[in-house]
Amino acid sequence: MPTTARWAATLTLTATAVCGPLGTTALAAPDLGPSGLYAPSALVLTMGHGQSAATVTAERAVTLNCAPTASGTHPDAPRACAELRLTDGDFSALSVRAGVMCTKEFDPVVVTVDGVWKGKRVAFERTFANECVKNSYGMTVFTF
Amino acid sequence: MPTTARWAATLTLTATAVCGPLGTTALAAPDLGPSGLYAPSALVLTMGHGQSAATVTAERAVTLNCAPTASGTHPDAPRACAELRLTDGDFSALSVRAGVMCTKEFDPVVVTVDGVWKGKRVAFERTFANECVKNSYGMTVFTF
Repeated sequence: MPTTARWAATLTLTATAVCGPLGTTALAAPDLGPSGLYAPSALVLTMGHGQSAATVTAERAVTLNCAPTASGTHPDAPRACAELRLTDGDFSALSVRAGVMCTKEFDPVVVTVDGVWKGKRVAFERTFANECVKNSYGMTVFTF
Repeated sequence: MPTTARWAATLTLTATAVCGPLGTTALAAPDLGPSGLYAPSALVLTMGHGQSAATVTAERAVTLNCAPTASGTHPDAPRACAELRLTDGDFSALSVRAGVMCTKEFDPVVVTVDGVWKGKRVAFERTFANECVKNSYGMTVFTF
């Protein structure tokens, strides 16, 4: 096991032993894959103006790692990872943020997500009527 | 080699070593996209044991950003980006490293690359006979 994974496991176990009753989420055991190491969660999210990813040039693209720790060029990786843990990496299950007011302007944007979540392949594409509507989908995942 | 020629060669190499990075690479214009911002280059690279990405669970996954600067969880992002710039992001054009000795053991590994290079979509998959052969493909890109 690499040092990082070993440390993570040790810290988690220590923390669990010491603080056991203090919440399950933050101290959850790492997602161990078949190899005994954590199952990787690494994604690239893109956005571009247009209706289909096949014809759109990506204007922005960010990376997001959620295991073993949250990192990447996503502007708020820790929150985006926390949000994705709630849906277990299911991008189509993200909720729409309540109370967001968007115009009905039609200036479509496509977002794509590719990579892996806990070792499983992710390929997601969705078109929104405009950028405001995109940003209201989920809490922070698509705000980049 | 005559002394003069040897000196000339030495000076050329020295000049290249000293001035090389200050010439083309560092001072190259950023890759501006249609929006006037740099065109993003953000990738997720995965590897897993098996013959096809469709059936393989990713055992390792790293992210690699090459614009505006090299970053990511790839163990050597700056070199991997420099290598990809030579092929302009064409993963099938990476050269095989010379002088690497691998056994003929058949323990296939699949690598995948998804994301964007200068805003253009990348979807690459390749199966290698074993991990040693994988690592000999390109210089650093697939060594993760």
